[in-house]
Amino acid sequence: MTNPSLLILPGDGIGPEVMAEVRKIIDWFGTKRDLAFDVSEGLVGGCSYDAHGTPLTDETMELAQSVDAVLLGAVGGPKYDNLDFSVKPERGLLRLRKEMDLFANLRPAQCFDALADFSSLKRDVVAGLDIMIVRELTSGIYFGEPRGIFEEGNERVGINTQRYTESEIERVARSAFELARRRGNKVCSMEKANVMESGVLWREVVQKVHDEEYPDVELSHMYADAGAMQLCRWPKQFDVIVTDNLFGDLLSDAAAMLTGSLGMLPSASLGAPMANGRPKALYEPVHGSAPDIAGQGKANPIACILSFAMALRYSFDLGDEADRLEAAVEKVLADGLRTADLLGEEGVTPVSTSEMGDAVVAAL
Amino acid sequence: MTNPSLLILPGDGIGPEVMAEVRKIIDWFGTKRDLAFDVSEGLVGGCSYDAHGTPLTDETMELAQSVDAVLLGAVGGPKYDNLDFSVKPERGLLRLRKEMDLFANLRPAQCFDALADFSSLKRDVVAGLDIMIVRELTSGIYFGEPRGIFEEGNERVGINTQRYTESEIERVARSAFELARRRGNKVCSMEKANVMESGVLWREVVQKVHDEEYPDVELSHMYADAGAMQLCRWPKQFDVIVTDNLFGDLLSDAAAMLTGSLGMLPSASLGAPMANGRPKALYEPVHGSAPDIAGQGKANPIACILSFAMALRYSFDLGDEADRLEAAVEKVLADGLRTADLLGEEGVTPVSTSEMGDAVVAAL
Ligand SMILES: CC(C)[C@H](C(=O)O)[C@@H](O)C(=O)O
Ligand SMILES: CC(C)[C@H](C(=O)O)[C@@H](O)C(=O)O
Repeated sequence: MTNPSLLILPGDGIGPEVMAEVRKIIDWFGTKRDLAFDVSEGLVGGCSYDAHGTPLTDETMELAQSVDAVLLGAVGGPKYDNLDFSVKPERGLLRLRKEMDLFANLRPAQCFDALADFSSLKRDVVAGLDIMIVRELTSGIYFGEPRGIFEEGNERVGINTQRYTESEIERVARSAFELARRRGNKVCSMEKANVMESGVLWREVVQKVHDEEYPDVELSHMYADAGAMQLCRWPKQFDVIVTDNLFGDLLSDAAAMLTGSLGMLPSASLGAPMANGRPKALYEPVHGSAPDIAGQGKANPIACILSFAMALRYSFDLGDEADRLEAAVEKVLADGLRTADLLGEEGVTPVSTSEMGDAVVAAL
Repeated sequence: MTNPSLLILPGDGIGPEVMAEVRKIIDWFGTKRDLAFDVSEGLVGGCSYDAHGTPLTDETMELAQSVDAVLLGAVGGPKYDNLDFSVKPERGLLRLRKEMDLFANLRPAQCFDALADFSSLKRDVVAGLDIMIVRELTSGIYFGEPRGIFEEGNERVGINTQRYTESEIERVARSAFELARRRGNKVCSMEKANVMESGVLWREVVQKVHDEEYPDVELSHMYADAGAMQLCRWPKQFDVIVTDNLFGDLLSDAAAMLTGSLGMLPSASLGAPMANGRPKALYEPVHGSAPDIAGQGKANPIACILSFAMALRYSFDLGDEADRLEAAVEKVLADGLRTADLLGEEGVTPVSTSEMGDAVVAAL
């Protein structure tokens, strides 16, 4: 039997340093648990632009299509801010999402108990919080045509198009209902059906999928602005939230920040099953490339490590091994180890990026 | 000299009851300060649909165009949820905004000291918070064409269009810079220039207006998802935020909720100057129509009262009178009077909607 294959794309900023820690974890599973992965590595984002003049080469794109799972660090940085839109670092990531057709972006917003005091929210509002935001990732205003900057009369106009077909909404709704069944059995769908026709269709299709296929799951609908409010007020009212690409971008970032555990939060982007039954998949931390702290050993590798845990669970059906890795992370936190983003409390032990990775390996 | 004219549109849900309290304030200014207004009243939203089959009649639209300022309560409610998109209550409000060309929506997110404990955020994160979100209100995805639900192949597709011209961005940017000069002299502009071309144009034009006309104001740019995060993390880093219609909808609602003072927050929507030099203007509370508590004397009238204070300031150049009204509100709060939305602390005095209105009048 061949080993499962992984493509690692560390990307920019702190991407390479957090990914180096994930390599240690992967190696541990290979030697200690007899779970060897065939690992290849490539470039995405600004570093790919620097090397090849494009944020993602066709070769890397092909490689991503051929492996069992992709693990990505982060892309972007001020160095690339003035690049033409078509070669911005983000285009590499967006191309991966689009061409791999990773329509369901799973973003857990979870508050780690040891870190609840890092939240700007009161402890009782966030302690124990565990919600899952399912964001549509391959359509909507991120990809709709027409788009661009055009001359019109004597001035320019910037245009983007929000566009959702019924089947695009159906499939991500199914992902949300499936997840809900394995969690709190509740889905809240968010759009602006009071203002946008694409939101009217969204609401109708989610309701239909619910009524026909998942009547056992509790479904509610909320306008996205009210959703933003409710996330800030009492996030524990939610279990699974399903929403479109753009709303999901804002809402999941707000939710992640609210937990106080931003440097800890992983994400999974899943597509349709491949021939081997595994879904197309890309895993990445929720945090960005943080160019201001890159290369200083300050980055927290846990979000990226937990992204690998999600890979174990969703790509390789190794839920027990994922649990093991997550437990190791919890232990290290309980032991008081903290990277620079999590300092401030009394009695904790400051560690560097690589010390944190080593500690997780030790805890395994 | 004729009196300045006001059109009052109470709308749905708690709209009528909070507006009744504003009428008391208006009367007080007429009798005690010799500031008489010619007040007319009309229907908007669901109540207009019930009476006329449309959320806003042409007659009311004309009236709104002819007065010095419009004061609106709130629109919408579950009763109207299944109405056709074109006659939903919200279309009445959107038609007012669009036809009056109210491009600059000013949404202060302010934390009232007496209420800081109502925030889900820690006290030190929100106490003293005073930021101003300037939301573009007449363009973007709310109004862009094409829009609608169309047949395509064998399924339907929902489409909306984000569309911004240079001049639309310029004028709202100017509003933001002007406001910043009278406040903390700092503007942060938010878009998704890393993903949307309309955001690229937005960023470029805001920067140009800054460089050519407001180089003295400090300007920064932030992606809207990072903006949502930063609002949740440390909102005091901001002074004025300028953003588009859709991002502004979510971000201003999140910011309002974070203050803990949602029932207290007013808004102003301003257009170009009319022949008499006053801007076209509509004032409304940030909160919605709250149909669940309508008609029970539970609603907090202060947001609507403070919307009238904004009218005094921005439409009638009566900044001193606005200060007086705002001071009266602060006094009533300091005295411990609280409507149902603000109960929970020890030692406060619960009051009904109309008792709160009376108390503000007495404090004047
Ligand atoms: C980097 C950027 C293109 C991306 C997005 O907007 O989707 C990021 O914010 C995210 O949420 O993964
Ligand atoms: C009622 C609705 C149309 C409106 C909007 O989306 O603009 C409201 O949410 C607001 O923010 O004023």
